[in-house]
Amino acid sequence: MPQTKILLDESDIPSHWYNVVADMPNPPAPPLGPDGKPVAPERMLAIFPGNILEQEMSRERWIPIPEPVRDIYRLWRPSPLIRAHRLEAVLGTPAKIYFKYEGVSPAGSHKPNSAVPQAYYNQVAGIKRLTTETGAGQWGSSLALAGQMFGLAVRVYMVKVSYHQKPFRRSMMQTWGAEVFASPTDMTQAGRGILAQDPDNPGSLGIAISEAVEEAASRADTNYALGSVLNHVLLHQTVIGLEAKKQFEQVGDYPDMIFAPCGGGCNFAGVSFPFFADKAAGDKRAQKLRFVAVEPASCPTLTKGVYAYDYGDVSGYTPLMKMYTLGHDFMPPGIHAGGLRYHGDSPLVSQLYHEKLIEAVAVPQLATFEAGVTFARAEGIIPAPESCHAIRACIDEALRCKASGEPKTLLFNLSGHGHFDMASYDKYFAGELEDYDYPEEAIQAALERLPKVAA
Amino acid sequence: MPQTKILLDESDIPSHWYNVVADMPNPPAPPLGPDGKPVAPERMLAIFPGNILEQEMSRERWIPIPEPVRDIYRLWRPSPLIRAHRLEAVLGTPAKIYFKYEGVSPAGSHKPNSAVPQAYYNQVAGIKRLTTETGAGQWGSSLALAGQMFGLAVRVYMVKVSYHQKPFRRSMMQTWGAEVFASPTDMTQAGRGILAQDPDNPGSLGIAISEAVEEAASRADTNYALGSVLNHVLLHQTVIGLEAKKQFEQVGDYPDMIFAPCGGGCNFAGVSFPFFADKAAGDKRAQKLRFVAVEPASCPTLTKGVYAYDYGDVSGYTPLMKMYTLGHDFMPPGIHAGGLRYHGDSPLVSQLYHEKLIEAVAVPQLATFEAGVTFARAEGIIPAPESCHAIRACIDEALRCKASGEPKTLLFNLSGHGHFDMASYDKYFAGELEDYDYPEEAIQAALERLPKVAA
Repeated sequence: MPQTKILLDESDIPSHWYNVVADMPNPPAPPLGPDGKPVAPERMLAIFPGNILEQEMSRERWIPIPEPVRDIYRLWRPSPLIRAHRLEAVLGTPAKIYFKYEGVSPAGSHKPNSAVPQAYYNQVAGIKRLTTETGAGQWGSSLALAGQMFGLAVRVYMVKVSYHQKPFRRSMMQTWGAEVFASPTDMTQAGRGILAQDPDNPGSLGIAISEAVEEAASRADTNYALGSVLNHVLLHQTVIGLEAKKQFEQVGDYPDMIFAPCGGGCNFAGVSFPFFADKAAGDKRAQKLRFVAVEPASCPTLTKGVYAYDYGDVSGYTPLMKMYTLGHDFMPPGIHAGGLRYHGDSPLVSQLYHEKLIEAVAVPQLATFEAGVTFARAEGIIPAPESCHAIRACIDEALRCKASGEPKTLLFNLSGHGHFDMASYDKYFAGELEDYDYPEEAIQAALERLPKVAA
Repeated sequence: MPQTKILLDESDIPSHWYNVVADMPNPPAPPLGPDGKPVAPERMLAIFPGNILEQEMSRERWIPIPEPVRDIYRLWRPSPLIRAHRLEAVLGTPAKIYFKYEGVSPAGSHKPNSAVPQAYYNQVAGIKRLTTETGAGQWGSSLALAGQMFGLAVRVYMVKVSYHQKPFRRSMMQTWGAEVFASPTDMTQAGRGILAQDPDNPGSLGIAISEAVEEAASRADTNYALGSVLNHVLLHQTVIGLEAKKQFEQVGDYPDMIFAPCGGGCNFAGVSFPFFADKAAGDKRAQKLRFVAVEPASCPTLTKGVYAYDYGDVSGYTPLMKMYTLGHDFMPPGIHAGGLRYHGDSPLVSQLYHEKLIEAVAVPQLATFEAGVTFARAEGIIPAPESCHAIRACIDEALRCKASGEPKTLLFNLSGHGHFDMASYDKYFAGELEDYDYPEEAIQAALERLPKVAA
């Protein structure tokens, strides 16, 4: 059998992150305050350090990765690019299928790629503690790991229902030394207010964000860290695509299409943007390259949402961001790809989609698990439900190639393993999962509640 | 920071397994029947294929690894050898600490190294189905994976209490297409007999073995597969140490001591035996090399057992094997390193220990989790409780080096990750775990029940 894994040395860990803003045809739409005027970055200094805000606003194409961050990346990076020979054979496709495997990180997903630099920049800025929220726990565990590496205390507000339903992600965070609380707590005004009205409130990501931000804003030694959506998070994730480019060079190949799950956007941006740089630079091989963001049919932000200014959170605490949104109070059904249950999308990904530089497709839940099982039986690795979305779309394309005879080169981002999601596979095998096509009327109703801002 | 991960190419996957029997000062003691006479290999043909029995009896030093097995190994092998710089710094030791990381396999442990060739050899022999037993699920999931890769149906008899307590390993096996049954079942005579007496029997590894063997023996298209103890299993695991040797060559280093968890012995043998070959061949660097098998204080087979002929299973269905044993009806307490709860040990490991060519040490449960947490906080990876035993012994040696100033080179086998063991970490953090020092009288009583056989 020909080569399966394409590996790089530690010396090939990228020295710089790639900032797509430098290559976008139009500058990013700025975040706005409730008054409709651009928000001054200084207003965010209560919860983010200056060095991160600088990255958030930067238009530099290449931003150096600090050595202490690269030293932590060394624990698992570069991640392998893997040729899925056995999946190709099972599908009988002439397409070549590659995947970048981010499940090799200690937290089991791509999330530490940004958690590590966020912890580092906060440490450099003299911060002692970080707060964050987590739902299923992928981001919370990644920040717990990163905080431990840089000697920062980490407090995670975990959505109460997940805290009790997913105890193993919580144990993982505690193993790395983080404090984990079931949100709503009685430790914040936001939490106390909600508990006063409803002592049995099961929590939500919106509430947990409010608690984490409130604590960070109220303590000088404490900052807040976010796991997706924002520009600096997408920036950090570009190590994925930068490595993949070197790996394709090594085998003399180049993708025709790239697939990634898309919730907040950092997963998709991480693998795609460095190839977008090739396209922007006029690289011949990249001119036909297509980028496909894959989202759940039950939370179809790009494919059924609108491009408008909206809040990033349910309660409307964040600045207004120009993005594809289903409405900030849109409540997606409880699908098992928790990382893709977000009403909005990264402003950068949204703008590129609006300008038709990238594509999007929505896939139903059952078909994603079917794809995940097909993949696991061919390649061994059991993928996270989020990653199954990219696999579904990639398999669909490989089957189109089978029909047409086209030997396309396909790449998807296998953003994480499914070891903490086996209960979802269990339900899939037991026939207990459903597809949800979100009704158009519900989307329309949510969109009518969008904030009124002059765009 | 200097190099962290020492990687090999797929072309470096060993072409041959190493058979330690060729280098043992004395031939292995043969398995005996209840009559005290050596068991003819043909008697085992009802449950094992001839090609595997041939390996079981072989005295050849090098046994070729079939290409189809190497092709599956490619999915994750060679596994990385990792220099634990951050752990060294935390301990403040002058010792150099390396670990071989076997958690990169899709099943998350070293077990597929033998499951894959066992599935292959059975397929070649025309077998359609494999049965096996599993407790915590590491071996069952590895055989499910391997069976899927070679198109064999796999049936796993999973100890009933684990089946209900550890549903995620079960889901993993089902994802790879295996059938999993809570043992005792009503599908075998053995199971029905037990259920007739006690309908609520929680199951045991002994019962599950009986069920799996009974089914394999009664069907011509079905064989049985065992995950440790036997010579051919240890043989297959030597890919670990063979790769590690190449990796040490690459960085110009060589271990002074090797640590591995020791339950049935395949983990320890896998990393150690190829270095034992160096010692036997008179390699100068290897002359001072020490091999340390690390076992739980609650199941101290090597350190407190006797070297005698005993059954491999509780019920006495297997041939008698000459091994260190605590007595075949010894019931170790319910510690969380399920893979190390075995009353006996591999006959090869036992003989080498008896001849003082290897060493053994027993460590208490709480200290192993403490070591696992220290390791996870330094290196990121959360280790399986079994692996924590090797980490404990290695850290203890590193601390002795700190006291003495010796810059020893230490190697341990990180045989698996702990993603399916977070409930155990949870209990550790909650202060709910205990140490168990097995009382001497209980051991003595069990040993008095050893079968009477002329050795």
